[in-house]
Amino acid sequence: MLSLPELNRRQWLKTTVAGVAGLTVARNLLVTPARAQHEDDRTAKRDEPARLGGNENPYGPSPMAVMAIVQNADKAFRYATKEEATKLGDLLAADNKVKAENVVVGSGSTEILENYAKWLSKQGSGPGGEIVSALPGYINFTGKMKALGSTIVTVPLDDNMVHDLDAMAAKVGPNTKAVYICNPNNPTSTIVPPAKLKAFCIEISKKCPVFIDEAYLECSDNFAENTMAPLVAAGHNIIVARTFSKMYGLAGQRVGYGLMPAAVAKEVAALSETRLNKLGVLAATASLEEMTYVSETRAKIKAERDKLCATLKELKRKFPDPQGNFVFFHTGMPIATFQEKMAAENVMVARAFPPALDWCRMSIGSPEEMALAHAALRKVFA
Amino acid sequence: MLSLPELNRRQWLKTTVAGVAGLTVARNLLVTPARAQHEDDRTAKRDEPARLGGNENPYGPSPMAVMAIVQNADKAFRYATKEEATKLGDLLAADNKVKAENVVVGSGSTEILENYAKWLSKQGSGPGGEIVSALPGYINFTGKMKALGSTIVTVPLDDNMVHDLDAMAAKVGPNTKAVYICNPNNPTSTIVPPAKLKAFCIEISKKCPVFIDEAYLECSDNFAENTMAPLVAAGHNIIVARTFSKMYGLAGQRVGYGLMPAAVAKEVAALSETRLNKLGVLAATASLEEMTYVSETRAKIKAERDKLCATLKELKRKFPDPQGNFVFFHTGMPIATFQEKMAAENVMVARAFPPALDWCRMSIGSPEEMALAHAALRKVFA
Repeated sequence: MLSLPELNRRQWLKTTVAGVAGLTVARNLLVTPARAQHEDDRTAKRDEPARLGGNENPYGPSPMAVMAIVQNADKAFRYATKEEATKLGDLLAADNKVKAENVVVGSGSTEILENYAKWLSKQGSGPGGEIVSALPGYINFTGKMKALGSTIVTVPLDDNMVHDLDAMAAKVGPNTKAVYICNPNNPTSTIVPPAKLKAFCIEISKKCPVFIDEAYLECSDNFAENTMAPLVAAGHNIIVARTFSKMYGLAGQRVGYGLMPAAVAKEVAALSETRLNKLGVLAATASLEEMTYVSETRAKIKAERDKLCATLKELKRKFPDPQGNFVFFHTGMPIATFQEKMAAENVMVARAFPPALDWCRMSIGSPEEMALAHAALRKVFA
Repeated sequence: MLSLPELNRRQWLKTTVAGVAGLTVARNLLVTPARAQHEDDRTAKRDEPARLGGNENPYGPSPMAVMAIVQNADKAFRYATKEEATKLGDLLAADNKVKAENVVVGSGSTEILENYAKWLSKQGSGPGGEIVSALPGYINFTGKMKALGSTIVTVPLDDNMVHDLDAMAAKVGPNTKAVYICNPNNPTSTIVPPAKLKAFCIEISKKCPVFIDEAYLECSDNFAENTMAPLVAAGHNIIVARTFSKMYGLAGQRVGYGLMPAAVAKEVAALSETRLNKLGVLAATASLEEMTYVSETRAKIKAERDKLCATLKELKRKFPDPQGNFVFFHTGMPIATFQEKMAAENVMVARAFPPALDWCRMSIGSPEEMALAHAALRKVFA
């Protein structure tokens, strides 16, 4: 999916491999028992619940990312340097075929969403205006804009629980400050047809910025076709947010980024109130060098997602076609009741997503966690 | 310095040691080459500059913190859990003899300063009012308050470059929103006489909150006597900020905390826009279990600080008595010129601190970095 100039990759890899040569034996010794212990967890009777509520990726982080963390653990006394952040930004720019000036690296994509919201609320006539968004949808950006004084204009998803772009376009007016689309959508895991989304973005961005949250897009079947990053490169007023928390399995390390017009990027970056964490930046950078990790992990997630869909079908549960590392399905009971029943089987699922209060979002966990989940679903829906 | 109930320490240590038993060999193999490489750095001709501008602590992180990072590197796919953050908060509460409700853990003490500023600007009649602070002093909190609409009333340090508490008290009036004191002060490294500060805090906090930034206090000769944490425990309107970035050598991992009245703590915590990073939280927690790390590191910093003071004295440079991991000295030339001269000798020093523009703040680095710094100072001041 991500393509860097081959030369850069090789040079970087060479430097890195030379740097860690002395640690190879130690690393094998180190990672092996840790992994072995993990394997034990998988076969032993689980005391720990299957944590399927946070859309985390138990197949990550990548070995190169783990290596970067281990190798730099005793350097954590240094702040992340400007050079380290710049290197990550440059790699992301190259991978996304945008300029470095289009990239803002943040403490998770959360920081990008928060700071873009702050920036946006100061544009034009200031706080207020309207944000057009889907319901149910991800509420971080809309929540922040609401707190900053905007009205959130929600547009129901269509019958397939996909963003209804025509209905959303109809809501864009002179007071619209931005349109927000999470694609795949959280919590429904649905993706918008790419050609239609592209046309929508080009048209609507003439009137107001369109914010595309691609937190889960790397998990989908066709990232390259679906990402709106090329529209940023082409100069449209589009913001694309991504994260290392999902496909890259670095949720704990808080690294995300946004792609946006250069002038906006500069001002959004200046709103940061925090510093990046060093091991997160180094792990994210190393992740981009994994040649096979993303495709292998995507395949593992898809395999487990397909199995979950098969079970849900068998249990006659409705669910829209999932493209993220989670599935949204109809439970036919209040979410609190369902959570309780699943918790009794040692499975934790996600919170309520109003107004879909008799639906549940379940993340794709490890095969062992999913085995527990399948058994729990069969019992609850027996 | 920090005292936990002995029983808790032991239980925790036991659990941890059991958990890492399988990694002991790997850890030795792992840490040894990394440390050995570090030793090489110290004796080899340095290509890297001595980085003495960021008040980082090259003696850290502690071995237990490094271990926590290494051991949990492959768990970074999980967000930091509430339980992990609670455990750290509970340890800090016990160490500081306050209630857990008095503790706010943040992404560096920066987040505590920022969020307390946001909270404060909403109190009373809202944004505006005055913040009483020293000049030169640390500008994060005052800068944020200024951005939020407050007037910063600056009070010059006394002739020894120490906070002039009488002059500050005289500036407190009906419009004062808070008093901010960084102790030891950044950039001067001076500490306020503890009995006097305590009396000041008790008296002034009847009128407005007093914010004591103790980022560097663990580096001082007598932490227990100088910390104002007991005043938080006693119910005064005092805020104490601390960080794992300095003495604990975890600057890169962004963990800090604040101690404050419980009702305030709850509201400040709710203002957080970010999540803690998992490896940072686990490393910080492990750091608190090191029985000897803090005292040993403090002694190393003091030894190098004493040597630096001796050289500065020999070179007839004025400097106030330092208590942090840095020294502020008179250069007799514009800071930009001095930075340039030091950079030519491969030593990086801190930025300008107006209005003391012919003074320099230099952090205490490793013995090897300091050797470079001594040589550079002798050359520049020859």
